[in-house]
Amino acid sequence: MRERERRLIALTRLVTARPGADEALSFLAARLKVAKSTLSEDLAEVKDALHEAELGVVETQVGPGGGIRFHPTLDEKTARAAVRGWCEALSDVRRLTGDGFLYMTDLLFDPHAVDPLGAVLAERLEGREAKFVVTVETKGIPLALAVARELSLPVVLLRRDNRLSEGPSLSINYLSGSSHRIQSMSIAQRSPVRGAPVVFVDDFMKAGGTARAAADLLSELGARVVGVGVLVATRKPDPKLIDGILSALTWDGEGSIAPTAWVAERLGLEMPMTAK
Amino acid sequence: MRERERRLIALTRLVTARPGADEALSFLAARLKVAKSTLSEDLAEVKDALHEAELGVVETQVGPGGGIRFHPTLDEKTARAAVRGWCEALSDVRRLTGDGFLYMTDLLFDPHAVDPLGAVLAERLEGREAKFVVTVETKGIPLALAVARELSLPVVLLRRDNRLSEGPSLSINYLSGSSHRIQSMSIAQRSPVRGAPVVFVDDFMKAGGTARAAADLLSELGARVVGVGVLVATRKPDPKLIDGILSALTWDGEGSIAPTAWVAERLGLEMPMTAK
Repeated sequence: MRERERRLIALTRLVTARPGADEALSFLAARLKVAKSTLSEDLAEVKDALHEAELGVVETQVGPGGGIRFHPTLDEKTARAAVRGWCEALSDVRRLTGDGFLYMTDLLFDPHAVDPLGAVLAERLEGREAKFVVTVETKGIPLALAVARELSLPVVLLRRDNRLSEGPSLSINYLSGSSHRIQSMSIAQRSPVRGAPVVFVDDFMKAGGTARAAADLLSELGARVVGVGVLVATRKPDPKLIDGILSALTWDGEGSIAPTAWVAERLGLEMPMTAK
Repeated sequence: MRERERRLIALTRLVTARPGADEALSFLAARLKVAKSTLSEDLAEVKDALHEAELGVVETQVGPGGGIRFHPTLDEKTARAAVRGWCEALSDVRRLTGDGFLYMTDLLFDPHAVDPLGAVLAERLEGREAKFVVTVETKGIPLALAVARELSLPVVLLRRDNRLSEGPSLSINYLSGSSHRIQSMSIAQRSPVRGAPVVFVDDFMKAGGTARAAADLLSELGARVVGVGVLVATRKPDPKLIDGILSALTWDGEGSIAPTAWVAERLGLEMPMTAK
């Protein structure tokens, strides 16, 4: 009995270690040194137990070459703690630079801080059937990677300038809503994004000029934006230059940052914290 | 008995879901609806079974406010497949741009491709006791985040220009070994890196000018580079402008990319694939 318990523990780790990735049944059987019939029984139990405990879903493909894939349930406790942590940190007035920017690079580049918010956005964006997550350098990259990891998608990067190392590219100039300056972004002609549905992810949105420009640039390659996720959006202007954005947090433009209503509702956060 | 098995499965997932993060015993007990004494017994078994199956180590802090932290063993199978995948993809001559660059942005921004290599580097860099992972924008960011996630550290980003949104900064100009151009990089004065040991991570190294400049810039803030990890280094020039670099893959400058000797040895890859 002890032996079976130990096998179930090891199997649970092997099954859940790489969410979204395929794991072959033949590998699992060899790794645990069990016959396929035993593995099937054990897998059924792991699957049931994870489902019952609301920890995730194990998909099984049977037959030769069969395998499993694990889809974890959103870890609400970690997400709640992360949302609270972000709101508290960003409400610190020392994070306001003289020019009215909000300094958040340190948090954006801390996996413990950004990954849970990526998971919250990914859960909402999952049904859009995107083939790529697109972001524009630089500060949106960690959030884009976090969303992409959850959705098992690659990230496509829009560059701020043309890069020698990426060959011919397509560019667009636009007026940034936040800096009132002409900005440009470009995408490699060889980008695999051509013709695909994509979600656009960025760290911050004010007027939405960057997201709008990204959508326009992508449409030149026949790619369509089927979802937009951002970490922080300003309350105003409203509406933004692009429709249907999902922002995890809302900033009133001064000292107050709160979870956006859908996030507060999803995570069961009390309403005093909530933004529209 | 069935009930105990299901509890062990759920506990295994809860214990291993966030490598490197602290999980409170009180949370685990509440989540599984068991008494602390039962939890202790269950935890001991999960710990033993994961250790025995060489899947990782569960650290336990006992007493009130006690908790656990999981350190996974390197997933050698996934790492081997990733190394093979990178070598095969990068040996495709179509990835050589006219200027002798190697196009790899698409792979760098695919979490399934870059995370396993981050884990391989992180295992080697773990003993250096760094407090931050430092990288310079843009293409090294996903690898730096992957290493940082494994080591439970935040990433500090060196910028290519001064950014309005980050306040006063310190800059350095240097001659890039690969492009023979003057480049610059800067770091925010408010960066938390001041005085700390750090590891520097980048996607590509030729002469090592960027890593050298980063080390010099960091030393101005009293931070010292205790390790350098890169995904691909060119075989020549040798030595580089900075000592002790760990590169996962070595490029001969033409068509051939192979795992560096320490990687081939660690993963048990056959020697024909190996670079010096």
